[in-house]
Amino acid sequence: MKLSDIGEFGVISSIRSDLKDFQKEVIVGIGDDTAAIEVSGEKLLLFTSDTLVEDIHFKWDYASPFQVGWKALAVNISDIAAVGGKPTQCLVSLALPADTERSLVREVYRGLKKAASRYRVAIVGGDTVRAPSFIITVSLLGEVKREDIVLRSRAKPGDLIYVTGQLGSSGAGLACLKASNWKIKPKIRQFLIKRHLMPSPRLDEGQKIASSQIATSMIDLSDGLASDLHRLAEESKVGAILWEDELPIALAVEQLAKVMGKFLLEWVLYGGEDYELLFTVAPSKRKEVEQTLGFPHALIGEVVDRDQGIYLKDRKGNRTKVKDGGYNHFSASTK
Amino acid sequence: MKLSDIGEFGVISSIRSDLKDFQKEVIVGIGDDTAAIEVSGEKLLLFTSDTLVEDIHFKWDYASPFQVGWKALAVNISDIAAVGGKPTQCLVSLALPADTERSLVREVYRGLKKAASRYRVAIVGGDTVRAPSFIITVSLLGEVKREDIVLRSRAKPGDLIYVTGQLGSSGAGLACLKASNWKIKPKIRQFLIKRHLMPSPRLDEGQKIASSQIATSMIDLSDGLASDLHRLAEESKVGAILWEDELPIALAVEQLAKVMGKFLLEWVLYGGEDYELLFTVAPSKRKEVEQTLGFPHALIGEVVDRDQGIYLKDRKGNRTKVKDGGYNHFSASTK
Repeated sequence: MKLSDIGEFGVISSIRSDLKDFQKEVIVGIGDDTAAIEVSGEKLLLFTSDTLVEDIHFKWDYASPFQVGWKALAVNISDIAAVGGKPTQCLVSLALPADTERSLVREVYRGLKKAASRYRVAIVGGDTVRAPSFIITVSLLGEVKREDIVLRSRAKPGDLIYVTGQLGSSGAGLACLKASNWKIKPKIRQFLIKRHLMPSPRLDEGQKIASSQIATSMIDLSDGLASDLHRLAEESKVGAILWEDELPIALAVEQLAKVMGKFLLEWVLYGGEDYELLFTVAPSKRKEVEQTLGFPHALIGEVVDRDQGIYLKDRKGNRTKVKDGGYNHFSASTK
Repeated sequence: MKLSDIGEFGVISSIRSDLKDFQKEVIVGIGDDTAAIEVSGEKLLLFTSDTLVEDIHFKWDYASPFQVGWKALAVNISDIAAVGGKPTQCLVSLALPADTERSLVREVYRGLKKAASRYRVAIVGGDTVRAPSFIITVSLLGEVKREDIVLRSRAKPGDLIYVTGQLGSSGAGLACLKASNWKIKPKIRQFLIKRHLMPSPRLDEGQKIASSQIATSMIDLSDGLASDLHRLAEESKVGAILWEDELPIALAVEQLAKVMGKFLLEWVLYGGEDYELLFTVAPSKRKEVEQTLGFPHALIGEVVDRDQGIYLKDRKGNRTKVKDGGYNHFSASTK
């Protein structure tokens, strides 16, 4: 059996199933956005890593080395944001073809350092090795108060589902990069492309959600709303309903969808890489959410029993199953 | 300017030169075997990562997936050993071609888990992505008492240079793998190959050296005695003399060198991947070394002033310059 038949999540769950974490300090192991380790009475150490591969996650045709550096760190920071943590230090591993120009490496590091300085992360080391193609792996540490950490696994039926910001911009941005001849305003185009190439992890938002102890679960939207909601539902052993009319979509995305004649929901559900935060809240805390969170967020659905599955409900009450789609690194041909 | 003209250390030092670590918790940043971060009053958090690339660091022709998994973690543990620390948790990032067999991944993980269990490390997460070739990056955490940490940077002229174990086995093992028709005993061959494919990091030794507070500096021999001694000398701003007659060489290596008609010192100085520990000791502590350390070690030279450079002295007193060679990931065609 080849990996292209299983997909990334199949690999992870097969690894997880026969791993025994023999350390009691490990509070969260494989299966959440980051590992969490006990280091002192009060704080947990967070530990995560993520990789970008040339021609799989980006192409040099449209992504600058600066943007790739930024994104390589930003996607890791998003994983720390997803548990409500604060990122602290990172290591950078670069695998590079031997004919890589030194200026490219400098630009990748300029992007890394820009993100590091923006989100107050120290780059404390790393290695460079030769490889057939460009691959960058960042591993990132962070911290969170033990009582604040928000995991994927504690959503309960009846909880409300919220999302920060707006959805679909990154997928629409990638569509703009692939086809440059759509008749849309340059400003809209630039906005969407920037959302794809230089995502802003919702770090302040994640910390606010965590410190207010308002959420029962949280995940960042890296693979797409559909896929990441499936992950959260799996870990929490629940189902979910999304309310189609409530999904927050940027005007720019709607405009592009109209011009391209494209099904809008495809970007929203399966586009991936929006790096917004999805979180669930007990219904009794609905008012508190409105009073506490001082940033854009939308109530987009509710948690239900596991056996109901995960579906989208339109304004007429029609239900459509939300497939566990999104980007599969092993079967998709391009992203 | 291409990276093949600069080499890995050129890349690292160019990155380092314009990085500001703005966090006071970062005790050791780029330039040592591992980063060290203050987490509590007493202990430092260690943080390191290392990458193995198919066809650069190993070939599937001769390395089993189990061995690659073992080695990917072992080389990281060696970095923790090199500062006297204890490894704790790791993340594994696998970049895999889409047609990778699932059984290969299982075997890689079996090797990782074998090393993890041998050295008491918890595998707490990781990701898998598609890539043109197989690349494995392990990032590893560890800990060490603040007063015990041994860095590369504190050797002083007059210090004695010691090394654990024996040198050259890994390079000789690789030579055996590349050419299978040398007339040596299968047992010798197997011993050397195992030293190359499944290195044993000197974890207990590193911890003993650190906790006895006997060493002024330490480094693990991953790139080769010559190259790693250059790194230590650079960080400490010193020179060094190696005593040719005192270099500890396994009998198997001598036998193979005889059969192959090969210059023995090439493996010893430039072969790399022995994963022994090189450490320096103030001359006043020479007796203490003999009384304290209960494992094989050899006194192989002395630290001198920086302007003397780094050279090898034979029994007649002849001096040969030790080049800053070893394996260069960007210019070497095979390893």
